[in-house]
Amino acid sequence: MSVSEAEHHQNPIRFGILGCARISHKFCRAISLLPSGTATISSISSRSLDKARQFAASARLHSSVKLLSPYDALLEDTSVDAVYVPLPTSHHATWAIAAAAKGKHVLIEKPAALCLEELERILEACAKNRVVFMDGAMWLHHPRTTEMRRLIDDPGRIGRLRLIHTSCSFLATPEFLQNDIRVKPNLDSLGALGDLGWYCIGSILWATNYNLPKTVVASPSLSLNQSGEILSCGASLYWDDGLVATLNCSFLSHVSTDLSIHGSQGTLLVRDLVIPYHEDGASFEVISGAHFAELHISWTKKPEEVVVKAPLRQEALMVLEFAKEVKLVRDKKSEPSLKWADISRKTQLVLDAVKKSIDQKFEPINL
Amino acid sequence: MSVSEAEHHQNPIRFGILGCARISHKFCRAISLLPSGTATISSISSRSLDKARQFAASARLHSSVKLLSPYDALLEDTSVDAVYVPLPTSHHATWAIAAAAKGKHVLIEKPAALCLEELERILEACAKNRVVFMDGAMWLHHPRTTEMRRLIDDPGRIGRLRLIHTSCSFLATPEFLQNDIRVKPNLDSLGALGDLGWYCIGSILWATNYNLPKTVVASPSLSLNQSGEILSCGASLYWDDGLVATLNCSFLSHVSTDLSIHGSQGTLLVRDLVIPYHEDGASFEVISGAHFAELHISWTKKPEEVVVKAPLRQEALMVLEFAKEVKLVRDKKSEPSLKWADISRKTQLVLDAVKKSIDQKFEPINL
Repeated sequence: MSVSEAEHHQNPIRFGILGCARISHKFCRAISLLPSGTATISSISSRSLDKARQFAASARLHSSVKLLSPYDALLEDTSVDAVYVPLPTSHHATWAIAAAAKGKHVLIEKPAALCLEELERILEACAKNRVVFMDGAMWLHHPRTTEMRRLIDDPGRIGRLRLIHTSCSFLATPEFLQNDIRVKPNLDSLGALGDLGWYCIGSILWATNYNLPKTVVASPSLSLNQSGEILSCGASLYWDDGLVATLNCSFLSHVSTDLSIHGSQGTLLVRDLVIPYHEDGASFEVISGAHFAELHISWTKKPEEVVVKAPLRQEALMVLEFAKEVKLVRDKKSEPSLKWADISRKTQLVLDAVKKSIDQKFEPINL
Repeated sequence: MSVSEAEHHQNPIRFGILGCARISHKFCRAISLLPSGTATISSISSRSLDKARQFAASARLHSSVKLLSPYDALLEDTSVDAVYVPLPTSHHATWAIAAAAKGKHVLIEKPAALCLEELERILEACAKNRVVFMDGAMWLHHPRTTEMRRLIDDPGRIGRLRLIHTSCSFLATPEFLQNDIRVKPNLDSLGALGDLGWYCIGSILWATNYNLPKTVVASPSLSLNQSGEILSCGASLYWDDGLVATLNCSFLSHVSTDLSIHGSQGTLLVRDLVIPYHEDGASFEVISGAHFAELHISWTKKPEEVVVKAPLRQEALMVLEFAKEVKLVRDKKSEPSLKWADISRKTQLVLDAVKKSIDQKFEPINL
């Protein structure tokens, strides 16, 4: 083992978890899957110590993990390098900005913020305090995503992008529709648009290499609950070169996380984009240069299934990537990379435009 | 063999083909695949006898097939029971109405007409002359379509329809974009909307059991050629119950004929709807009642592939269905069924609305 590898192993990124949400269990499991020396859980905090204790027991956390309450206590903990923020979206800005002010790097669940203005304030605090920012879109870190990127960027495979379609949905239970954070305007005023639309918009922008659309129009097929929260919505995005993207996100439809990308030369389809069917790998379908055969009675070829193994789960790869960036700042005194912050910003910007179009009775919003 | 079976075998439906288009070869092949006694080609006509002769040779038609020119000669031929009309769309009304007036049943290529008003005139002529009308959407006759229908109608499989997405495209060659009938305003003024949108709209309506949308809005992502012909367009369709359907049809994108149907309980996906990848069968994917598994790290199940064998090709099954309807009228003196005419009418009605929305700068059109 070289000195730098030894150093790496001796200095894991120490996470503090702000809130004992259900997804915090997934985060703890991700940490446990990482090579030793990558990251550890140093502290967890909750609104009550009891809740933190229950969480620690249920997640089988090591007894060395500090249990803190309220959240401020965790931010004061100098043994914490970075915070993981799974709080309701309406609390993101407060706690992310407070964490950054204390020099903690910020890994925040999606949607990053309620609106772009709020996210800008978070990112400003991160920049000012030289801390890394990343949102919790795990699929971006799956090796399948890298392989799809390679194909999209290969001009002979997909070609010029013409049409992108995404659908992200699940059928919420009556209990969810009554009580979940994501249907409460005071906790997460973006509803399905924030929770699921973040993936739709993120995957569309990803497909275009983060080339922003010129115009965004929300679809009049909008479902709201009695509090005005979005249960289901859709939008179309238009680029100057003729590319169009459509998205639909819904708490009222069977589970789907589809992404289909139609280009001049080929088509790519993935149906389990956000959460792969299985943990050990994932696949997508691609077809390039096909035609209808003579007499139009068949195709010259069928789509090919590309299988990509995942030695580490996507959530673990996300933490690995975040820890790598944090180590560069903490241990090498590098400037924090803005790569992930920029992705979040562009996603939030388009999400804002969809929300604005909804609020303005489905008028087109020019970016 | 019973008397009625013998009668059936002795009295095939005798087709006259109006025009030697490339698709007429596919039609002749379909006839050749049918059980004997179903249908025969009695006559073919072209603008020139030479062209008819060349076609007959290339399609290896039996020497008993009459070669006629011009088209009127075929309509005068009393040995013809039914016409197959693969002419450019702008000629459909003239020849379909003339054929009906001569008591010929009408099997017409899609799009059925340039507009609803024209189609209504065709259908009126068919009704007045007691002849069967059917358009050439072959996929409706594939046994896969029947199996998908069964699943959609089973309330536990797909459930309440939420989102339908269709894409129908092929990458036209420079030669096509220069010379094809479908990019010439005087021959087929609907362009890609007529040629491919017919499938998109038809499959959306089929999925809803021909429940018409309330509102249709064309997408501003429109590509026209220099003559104003539609090379690529899209639209969204809205129903009162929250169902939304999106369609895109294009001569500028890699071949696709996707249909995805998202319901409350399940999702159905087919990627080779219009022309199956292979001739001997076709498949689709369906998933029902799936959820994200504990911790949202996988799904409780994957989509299942349903394979449906096709003992006869879909184009042959279309002719079989048409011949069956025609025999009921010709041999049993039944009233012509309006089933297929109604499907064409509803498809044309929605297509008209998309066209109107395009012409009115993408304004919503209420049906």
